Amino acid sequence: MAYGEIFYNLREKNLSNWLLYTQHKFLKKLSEGALKRDCFLNYLKQDYLFLIQFSKAWSLAVLKSDNLDEMKISASTVNDLINFEMQLHIDLCNEYGISKTDLESTDEKNENIAYTRYVLELGYSGDFLDLLSALAPCVLGYGEIGLNLKDFKPDNLMYQKWIETYASNEYQDVCKNVSQLIDNSFLIRLGNNYKDTYKWVQANKIFNKATLLEVDFWNMALK
Amino acid sequence: MAYGEIFYNLREKNLSNWLLYTQHKFLKKLSEGALKRDCFLNYLKQDYLFLIQFSKAWSLAVLKSDNLDEMKISASTVNDLINFEMQLHIDLCNEYGISKTDLESTDEKNENIAYTRYVLELGYSGDFLDLLSALAPCVLGYGEIGLNLKDFKPDNLMYQKWIETYASNEYQDVCKNVSQLIDNSFLIRLGNNYKDTYKWVQANKIFNKATLLEVDFWNMALK
Amino acid sequence: MAYGEIFYNLREKNLSNWLLYTQHKFLKKLSEGALKRDCFLNYLKQDYLFLIQFSKAWSLAVLKSDNLDEMKISASTVNDLINFEMQLHIDLCNEYGISKTDLESTDEKNENIAYTRYVLELGYSGDFLDLLSALAPCVLGYGEIGLNLKDFKPDNLMYQKWIETYASNEYQDVCKNVSQLIDNSFLIRLGNNYKDTYKWVQANKIFNKATLLEVDFWNMALK
Amino acid sequence: MAYGEIFYNLREKNLSNWLLYTQHKFLKKLSEGALKRDCFLNYLKQDYLFLIQFSKAWSLAVLKSDNLDEMKISASTVNDLINFEMQLHIDLCNEYGISKTDLESTDEKNENIAYTRYVLELGYSGDFLDLLSALAPCVLGYGEIGLNLKDFKPDNLMYQKWIETYASNEYQDVCKNVSQLIDNSFLIRLGNNYKDTYKWVQANKIFNKATLLEVDFWNMALK
Repeated sequence: MAYGEIFYNLREKNLSNWLLYTQHKFLKKLSEGALKRDCFLNYLKQDYLFLIQFSKAWSLAVLKSDNLDEMKISASTVNDLINFEMQLHIDLCNEYGISKTDLESTDEKNENIAYTRYVLELGYSGDFLDLLSALAPCVLGYGEIGLNLKDFKPDNLMYQKWIETYASNEYQDVCKNVSQLIDNSFLIRLGNNYKDTYKWVQANKIFNKATLLEVDFWNMALK
Repeated sequence: MAYGEIFYNLREKNLSNWLLYTQHKFLKKLSEGALKRDCFLNYLKQDYLFLIQFSKAWSLAVLKSDNLDEMKISASTVNDLINFEMQLHIDLCNEYGISKTDLESTDEKNENIAYTRYVLELGYSGDFLDLLSALAPCVLGYGEIGLNLKDFKPDNLMYQKWIETYASNEYQDVCKNVSQLIDNSFLIRLGNNYKDTYKWVQANKIFNKATLLEVDFWNMALK
Repeated sequence: MAYGEIFYNLREKNLSNWLLYTQHKFLKKLSEGALKRDCFLNYLKQDYLFLIQFSKAWSLAVLKSDNLDEMKISASTVNDLINFEMQLHIDLCNEYGISKTDLESTDEKNENIAYTRYVLELGYSGDFLDLLSALAPCVLGYGEIGLNLKDFKPDNLMYQKWIETYASNEYQDVCKNVSQLIDNSFLIRLGNNYKDTYKWVQANKIFNKATLLEVDFWNMALK
Repeated sequence: MAYGEIFYNLREKNLSNWLLYTQHKFLKKLSEGALKRDCFLNYLKQDYLFLIQFSKAWSLAVLKSDNLDEMKISASTVNDLINFEMQLHIDLCNEYGISKTDLESTDEKNENIAYTRYVLELGYSGDFLDLLSALAPCVLGYGEIGLNLKDFKPDNLMYQKWIETYASNEYQDVCKNVSQLIDNSFLIRLGNNYKDTYKWVQANKIFNKATLLEVDFWNMALK
């Protein structure tokens, strides 16, 4: 239960799709250094656009919070994403020959739109648990991928660096904080018998759909 | 300028994508009776899920309205969609062997999610003009398609009925009312020199993206 | 349990504030014909602005619905409010010498803003149950007030007509439909032991706060 | 034009209400040390609840941003409010004998609800400019109040400290950043002739209403 009880149970219930996502061919190729450079660069561009919408979704978590602790973690996450990770992403892209102007003029692919707008719309229409169920696959899935791939050392330094980012202690700590937030917020709202509730059924549907939209994001990246 | 000045200009500016949508192979096949029955039935099922989200998007138009006239047209549209068209759709599907339970258990395809959540999220995050720019391609595009195809009489009665629905005076009146709403709301907010405004650039981006998401909806239907 | 089980329980738990609202001095004066004409006319003007925001809040109920039945009732309510009741209200005001222009140029009082924006913001930030808990005091409170006052026959015909509106079978049917919607949506989501849930505590807080904001609305009307 | 051109013009157009707010009796009493201790402590408690909602409103600014620069400033503001100012506020209250539990169990007064929900609802329903017009009176008004009062040295150290907070360079820098954000976002969206636009009329209405809701917040604090 690396990332908490609630995530453990969501993952177990939707395991086959979860593995389609976290063991996707894109990752296999990347870890073996067999991924085409262009695929990776296009992925980075789409990921820039993704991060913008993803930060907006985390901002909705501040709005949907029920107490100050939930607000604090959500607000830190928004700030980290926008004021630090975005800049890292921009610098990294720059290093690989993609300018900030390139990033900003990238056309958002439909698979990217599908995923981000699904999460955001759910953040607007749903409550805190709905939103966390939609955010979990991205945050914690990348953590799991990082751990899965950490012993792979592809020659391509871009790929190695990408793996190290998500295998790093810093990122694993983010995952622990987020899964703690998920555990607390589910248990406070639904109680210990959460598996018998209407909201648990919804949480599983959302988690499963977000996972499938992640799969399509990798499919897009391989095209 | 069948459907008003604003739509005319949005359509002209994004003409090549517009034609990809309104003259899509799906429609060619349907009008010639060459569309596979299964494709059409799957389309109807996805369209049921689409209509639910689309009605929700029109509800946001009530919230984003600035005056009572805008609220009236938006509220009527929501009510017509939910309390009349949905029932027609359910009855029609039933006639073709798709039960209400089938409709409700249909899995929402990613292309459907992409389009509907794009519009809804924009309805939440954007203003009345942004939302109308995203709603226009669907409402008015189907009107144009109805007129384009009205002289085609495919043997398959399902296809003929589908064409008649959108070529009908009732549907063409809906298009006129909506395009009137679009003209009024753009002109009130942006003035006669609307083409020089920041909002006009945005409206075109949104209209174009929604059009491309419609194209993908047809692609999905042909799969 | 005139208006269903859930409302019955919310009302009982918050009874003292509920009676402050439904037995307010404004109503006593109105029923005895002792209310100043200006107070009543000012109330009608504020109520016009209230209805606009209240219709918008019901539009959020369409967005927060989880199934087609919930959407249908919510959409009908929005449509009735905007396309029928608003017009009745405008006609009535006109009869009493308040033109549509007067209505539209009325300055929204802070007590009006407090109540409507509380409900709307909760409709955006909360879920379907939160929103219904905030809408219930207005819809069902006016129903109860109508029944409380139906045997009073103030000489002032404006006041008599006002009482008749809310005592009418038409309005009582609206109350029955809305309380049925409330019962169904709470029971589906929270189950039979709803009183043991986190959401029930929240629902009571919201119901109580909305009731107090109604009290302040009457206070404003008496100023 | 201490705080930029747009704020200067909004302030000028709504000057009489602006002075009712920034030169309110509450402030006069505070600066002369004549304010009752209980009034001030109650104000601090309401202000705690206010800050929570105000942070949520700034989170909406992240969602309504059109570019990364707007997102960055909005996200920093949210983070500063939640992860720093809230803690300062809690510590300060604690020093004055108000525990965190007291703060959390404080009943939100209607005048507080009116103001915060007005801003938040507008943040949801409106666009970035609408939201900034509603946020400006609080942020920049407190800056102006700080400068107005900085030479007053009330004996009561609580009052002196309060004045120093808003007169401080740190707070004045916040005001400069926010007014820069306001200038940029208005000019990008509306152009140099912004005074001729529909949005400018709206911005003034919102600014004026938010200012009046601030006046009522002081009135509440004096009760």
